[in-house]
Amino acid sequence: MKALVYQEPGKMAWQDKAKPVIDKPTDAIVRITRTTICGTDLHILKGDVPTVTPGRTLGHEGVGIVESVGEGVSRFKPGDHVLISCISACGRCLNCKRQLYAHCEDGGWILGHLIDGTQAEYVRIPHADNSLHPIPDGADEEALVMLSDILPTGLEIGVLNGQVKPGDTVVIVGAGPVGMAALLTAQFYSPARLVMVDMDTNRLDTARQLGATHTFNAAEGDIADRLMALTDGRGADVAIEAVGIPATFDLCQEIVAAGGHIANVGVHGTPVSLHLDKLWIRNITLTTGLVSTHTTPMLLQTVQAGTLSPGSLVTHRFALDDIEAAYRVFGNAAREKAMKVILEA
Amino acid sequence: MKALVYQEPGKMAWQDKAKPVIDKPTDAIVRITRTTICGTDLHILKGDVPTVTPGRTLGHEGVGIVESVGEGVSRFKPGDHVLISCISACGRCLNCKRQLYAHCEDGGWILGHLIDGTQAEYVRIPHADNSLHPIPDGADEEALVMLSDILPTGLEIGVLNGQVKPGDTVVIVGAGPVGMAALLTAQFYSPARLVMVDMDTNRLDTARQLGATHTFNAAEGDIADRLMALTDGRGADVAIEAVGIPATFDLCQEIVAAGGHIANVGVHGTPVSLHLDKLWIRNITLTTGLVSTHTTPMLLQTVQAGTLSPGSLVTHRFALDDIEAAYRVFGNAAREKAMKVILEA
Repeated sequence: MKALVYQEPGKMAWQDKAKPVIDKPTDAIVRITRTTICGTDLHILKGDVPTVTPGRTLGHEGVGIVESVGEGVSRFKPGDHVLISCISACGRCLNCKRQLYAHCEDGGWILGHLIDGTQAEYVRIPHADNSLHPIPDGADEEALVMLSDILPTGLEIGVLNGQVKPGDTVVIVGAGPVGMAALLTAQFYSPARLVMVDMDTNRLDTARQLGATHTFNAAEGDIADRLMALTDGRGADVAIEAVGIPATFDLCQEIVAAGGHIANVGVHGTPVSLHLDKLWIRNITLTTGLVSTHTTPMLLQTVQAGTLSPGSLVTHRFALDDIEAAYRVFGNAAREKAMKVILEA
Repeated sequence: MKALVYQEPGKMAWQDKAKPVIDKPTDAIVRITRTTICGTDLHILKGDVPTVTPGRTLGHEGVGIVESVGEGVSRFKPGDHVLISCISACGRCLNCKRQLYAHCEDGGWILGHLIDGTQAEYVRIPHADNSLHPIPDGADEEALVMLSDILPTGLEIGVLNGQVKPGDTVVIVGAGPVGMAALLTAQFYSPARLVMVDMDTNRLDTARQLGATHTFNAAEGDIADRLMALTDGRGADVAIEAVGIPATFDLCQEIVAAGGHIANVGVHGTPVSLHLDKLWIRNITLTTGLVSTHTTPMLLQTVQAGTLSPGSLVTHRFALDDIEAAYRVFGNAAREKAMKVILEA
């Protein structure tokens, strides 16, 4: 088969690779029908994730058709149409029993990281019964690819960790795919104001179309001043950090209201300065996390019901064979006006 | 009357001062029967709290007898025996309606800060209906003085913010009065392990007597290593920071388990380094806060029921007239083996 293989920092190739086989009784082999590229894949490609070693097939998102299953798999059979979760979970360990699948003792985020991933014609999925989701007949595959990672991440790590509730002022800093996923899913909880902050005019326009009530371009004046003016000096009930750099984390500290929440979603490469000298007295809650995907079944229901339309995040489509071209477009997202790219097998 | 008056950094005096009078219809005047000194008073005295201006009577804890009430006070009358909350709350503003009395728009922590406090023969209590609590007949005044601030602080900002639950490993860093209050109230929720960390052998001995299952002396080897050995490498479900310096906050970051909580209780004077490069993926929750004292009625019940014995924190007793001597003892707490000192009128 063919797979997108990481070779060394800055280098990858769509190349021949042995088709995966069942390794453990709880495995399934899935033939990929659609996959996508994540910002994390770009980080890996740059060499920022040293736990990814040369020879690794990238990708942790996708949908497909079950090709074969191990003896221990009971929920799925060959021919089943499935959504692949970016998180593999045994379902049995202490962390899984707490719904903290991100920290499964025999799983977590391993796809396209510690084991071969989904940017390939076939992928082996460990703990298939807990790591695949059945796709209802007639569902839109493109929309569902968004449910492998970014929609549950935006929901669980942004919206649910931030405890968004009706009437809140919610500020999302960073209009990338995960920030947009937080924007879409925050609307489940009827906030009063949903403010998107970014420096990309095109992305802010998209945010307006997807439900932002206000958009602040960080290149045009002080964001904190503008937010305080908007909220009678109270600030944000929930600030969702969806970038992953000190400056955007600082902004969240500056705008959070007394009693408010900072939900960190961004992947950070350095420590940040936490202004405990100011915040110790402010009764704030700061959360971090990798997605556990425990909300994926709920998200599938919302897509089926039409309450959520994550397909709107797809801007570009390529044949799976053209994945290297897709990486070039996604890697220049601002110039290409790219949000999510779909690879179709 | 006499009052303990802040004069300038390093200087205070027990001196004559005009007896307070009803200023607003919602005020009460309380004759102090017992009060105490808080670590915050020592900070003020050093000049660390510039919002406290010369001439201010210190103190935000105490019990007493209502002397007079304004026309708008309906829950209390002269002669009533009352517990004074360190937080004054109007009960009507947006923050009060969220139980966030700490950030009351016409109150919060003002006693002994922005208005004259409880280290005096009489004190004016604003918003008396919401800022005083009736004391049941026969209650132990000494124990109740602990309920003005430190017990609700340890409970709300340590234990409840940290979401302590049965079976948890709870680590409290700092065996001062508020750390001890967290130790006492954490036991309401039946944690499996209750570890106290400090460098003062005497305080660690006290922590054992008050319910700590383990005590780690920070002067004797690496705390993180010892905690990981104790918890099979998992770490603390809840780490309560009750000191307020970067080193102890760092320790909490080091020991918190995936999915765990850091409850910051310490008053910090400088920013700290938050290791988001490591913690972004760990699904942790960090909380900060000033006490709201919404748990004071519940704590009164537990004291009455004998479930909580905060009188055990009292180590020294002085006449109110001797408050300057009490400050000298409390200001040398380690040498004097002092935890809380009681001033009796």
